[in-house]
Amino acid sequence: MKNIWTLPLYCADYTLFVVRKDVSGWDTRGLMWDEIIKQRWTNTTLNILLVDDVYLNGPTLDVNGAEDFIRESMRIITEDAVKKATDVREKVCEWHSPEDLKELLDLQLTDEGESDTRILERCRDAIRYSVKTTHPRFFNQLYAGMEPYSMVASFIIEALKPSLYTYEVSPVFTLVEDAVLRKMREVIGWKEGGDGIFNAGGSLSNMYAVNLARYHHCPDVKELGLSAVPRLVLFTSQECHYSISKAAAFLGIGTKNVYVVPSDNSVVFLGLQNSCIKYDTFGVKGLNVRVCDQGAVPFMVNATAGTTVLGAFDPIEEIADICEKHNLWLHVDACWGGAALMSAKHKHLLKGVHRANSVAWNPHKMLMACLQCCAFLVRDKTGLLQRCYSARASYLFQQDKFYDVSYDTGDKSVQCSRKPDAFKFWLMWKALGSKELEQRVDRAFAMAKYLAQEVKKREGFRLLMEPEYANVCFWYIPPSLRDLPDSTELWEKIHKVAPVVKERMMKKGSMMVGYQPHGDKANFFRMIIISPQVSRQDMDFVLDEIDRLGRDL
Amino acid sequence: MKNIWTLPLYCADYTLFVVRKDVSGWDTRGLMWDEIIKQRWTNTTLNILLVDDVYLNGPTLDVNGAEDFIRESMRIITEDAVKKATDVREKVCEWHSPEDLKELLDLQLTDEGESDTRILERCRDAIRYSVKTTHPRFFNQLYAGMEPYSMVASFIIEALKPSLYTYEVSPVFTLVEDAVLRKMREVIGWKEGGDGIFNAGGSLSNMYAVNLARYHHCPDVKELGLSAVPRLVLFTSQECHYSISKAAAFLGIGTKNVYVVPSDNSVVFLGLQNSCIKYDTFGVKGLNVRVCDQGAVPFMVNATAGTTVLGAFDPIEEIADICEKHNLWLHVDACWGGAALMSAKHKHLLKGVHRANSVAWNPHKMLMACLQCCAFLVRDKTGLLQRCYSARASYLFQQDKFYDVSYDTGDKSVQCSRKPDAFKFWLMWKALGSKELEQRVDRAFAMAKYLAQEVKKREGFRLLMEPEYANVCFWYIPPSLRDLPDSTELWEKIHKVAPVVKERMMKKGSMMVGYQPHGDKANFFRMIIISPQVSRQDMDFVLDEIDRLGRDL
Repeated sequence: MKNIWTLPLYCADYTLFVVRKDVSGWDTRGLMWDEIIKQRWTNTTLNILLVDDVYLNGPTLDVNGAEDFIRESMRIITEDAVKKATDVREKVCEWHSPEDLKELLDLQLTDEGESDTRILERCRDAIRYSVKTTHPRFFNQLYAGMEPYSMVASFIIEALKPSLYTYEVSPVFTLVEDAVLRKMREVIGWKEGGDGIFNAGGSLSNMYAVNLARYHHCPDVKELGLSAVPRLVLFTSQECHYSISKAAAFLGIGTKNVYVVPSDNSVVFLGLQNSCIKYDTFGVKGLNVRVCDQGAVPFMVNATAGTTVLGAFDPIEEIADICEKHNLWLHVDACWGGAALMSAKHKHLLKGVHRANSVAWNPHKMLMACLQCCAFLVRDKTGLLQRCYSARASYLFQQDKFYDVSYDTGDKSVQCSRKPDAFKFWLMWKALGSKELEQRVDRAFAMAKYLAQEVKKREGFRLLMEPEYANVCFWYIPPSLRDLPDSTELWEKIHKVAPVVKERMMKKGSMMVGYQPHGDKANFFRMIIISPQVSRQDMDFVLDEIDRLGRDL
Repeated sequence: MKNIWTLPLYCADYTLFVVRKDVSGWDTRGLMWDEIIKQRWTNTTLNILLVDDVYLNGPTLDVNGAEDFIRESMRIITEDAVKKATDVREKVCEWHSPEDLKELLDLQLTDEGESDTRILERCRDAIRYSVKTTHPRFFNQLYAGMEPYSMVASFIIEALKPSLYTYEVSPVFTLVEDAVLRKMREVIGWKEGGDGIFNAGGSLSNMYAVNLARYHHCPDVKELGLSAVPRLVLFTSQECHYSISKAAAFLGIGTKNVYVVPSDNSVVFLGLQNSCIKYDTFGVKGLNVRVCDQGAVPFMVNATAGTTVLGAFDPIEEIADICEKHNLWLHVDACWGGAALMSAKHKHLLKGVHRANSVAWNPHKMLMACLQCCAFLVRDKTGLLQRCYSARASYLFQQDKFYDVSYDTGDKSVQCSRKPDAFKFWLMWKALGSKELEQRVDRAFAMAKYLAQEVKKREGFRLLMEPEYANVCFWYIPPSLRDLPDSTELWEKIHKVAPVVKERMMKKGSMMVGYQPHGDKANFFRMIIISPQVSRQDMDFVLDEIDRLGRDL
């Protein structure tokens, strides 16, 4: 499997070879290396092509020679990275500090290569010391669990190395992406047409949205830049994902031009009068806020369906009313909460989403498609996405091709090479059907409800809020703190509990649950429930385990 | 492998089950489904937990049950997507029009799922109808060939589903990325320190660079946006990748603020005087250009090492002189050409690259790491990258963790979830060593030289320029056009040849070679040589085949 010409070509055995010029004038010796090996004792006239001291005859990488290595590595992956990684009796992680792990892994890259045996050991080690995000006790992020169909789809992608820009290079995956985007738009409620693209992460989807909204508002920005237009501002709630702020920084809008609306009160722009932005709140608490801001021009509102920490849903219908009234682009960041659309029982959480101009939705989260799988969906039917993003690279998007070049979707993207992530969702959707996806979503909701009830029942646990979705947020209060009066001092103590419990669970490897402070709230645990591998017993285990790990604090 | 509770739970057999309230007040029946199956004929009191009509006892996805499916799919991948796909006797692609292929694939997503047998057929079909980018006769893009070590690394990633933001979730891959970035910086010639990040594509790397240069020039842009600063402009050559233009559009700079310098004459900013930008040329031809542009403030120069179409290298040393003189950020887009740095013989092409402020370099191109594998490397040692990109999300980057949080690299990224692509490069580098990587690069150069010589020798072929790198650009002129005088009319006819030849090679499936017009040049073929699976015989084949396919035109 190593390059064959790294064998000692100049060794004594080969001085028998007769070098001659071939008819085309090249210094050639013409046989492939394995033929040379066969003929090493026969004093044949050989014909090897040498250019700049490099032999160009025959391949120097033999993929068939790699077959044993590939088979053995697949065996290791199946045993260690699939079966063992998802086995509840195994650890979620085997913790080592960065310094220790560097020693264990021997990361140095050197001049000489290593044997296949050594590389297979390295594969085993990489798996062994990695966190098992597919383990039933991994609740740390907004993704979890193992989806076999999607994983297999991703193996196919990795083996074939397709890139989505032109139909000619990725015919299957181009059509698959189109089919999945169509179906997702249908689920959103956009009857016909529309547009979209899969890309490398929900953060990028939100950036696509901000840029598209800006282009829609003022197409000149693409050519002339923001220095040629008045200051643009956008609205989002305090609970939104941090990628909105990142988008504002990256896209040159500026983080201060993101108008953050206090949560529990969805404050939305009302109108531009006398060079003033006036905006007002609506929502449950009815708090009114008015701000006057010289020279700012609002162009979009970002609503969040399923916030990262609390799993809360902005009232899309009400926000859509205001956006329509003021001609603002409505983007719904449903990266996490979009999955609720698959459920007849729970899709009301996104009521009005069909009125959005764009939606970001990551099937790699609740729906368990293999990382990454992120759709950016657009209601527009006029080719806005293409106009906004196109650079018309003539070496890639030739217009004189022999097929319908509207299938060359690459010019809608900020990327050039782009992975066909939709396939990972498509194959599992084909296998499971919409019904099974719906049942999984319903089960996650039910499981979250169960966990929240248990938290409320148990001594020493305190629920932050009733879960709207699959996030269950709660404090653990060790016995030593339970009788203290509710005070700043108590909460300062509670704040220090979660980091210690987290450290202990990591070092024990029993589970992974995230914690964070949030606004004025002291550190609390955030359980995320996704995988159908998880049962009521795991919920009970998590609470028991936190209590075990934190009782003495 | 399907959710167990989709089985007919209410069927007659189970009416024997006694539902009771458990001590905690839940409506529970307590046994896992397989236990229920075992006990279906024994009239036992069962204990199943029901919440919102969903059964929460026991996992409803059994990964072990998926083992046969995973094994069988791995067999198909090895046979069809690895062995057959890389077999030179097989077709590069089996062409179907979008309409036909839609019929063949049956893309519709429905309520009901499909059997594993059917899903395995779908896997086979997806592979069958995909273009084999790993085939020895695929020369269509700036990547090609199959690298077994890297492919296996990517399988491990897909099975483990790691995401790079915090050390606690991706300990192994965080350290691996750090090691690879270090080594790549060493190859560039940055002795100690420095920074970097792997991300989803070379286009994004270039965007990182533009944003970082802008932040370096004026940190206020992050908060205040571009509307608060004078018009920023950047310089790049005409031959640069289109992502520079995309970056300018996306980042709010505006495509017109990309000052495009004619190629063959690297025009670089000389100084800002009297509110005028004056810039001047240098380089081989010594053409001078002066432009006066009111109010524009230059902040960076993008130099390209290995242009997309021609494989040309900008003179980095000379550009660095001017950048230093005028305090401009120098970014080198070495996405394609960076691999030459691995070769003692050819690294002179990037002479001066160590003077760049940032470098983009994609190991997934010439070095054959599995798609995508793209490094953005930064010379700065003061944490500029982190300051530029950070959003300090408190739910992810808690500062009260029990380990050194400087290993939480996620806040340097525009993404949130990010794939550990460096691992795909690291494992193959470990296996092959730097020496083997160097030999592969040298061989690609030699192969390109051979092909160029053959093009020059053969009747009906005309070389566009001597290759500097692994791009060989040439026209094919069919016999009917060979005796015509050199005229606009002739070139209009030549322009139409490549698209037809391309159509024929696609429909035959014999190979894939790209073509494009370029500036005032009529359509020409661009051969890209990368894979060690490719031999001199394949070069000869390409020229023979083009002649066979186009003789009658």
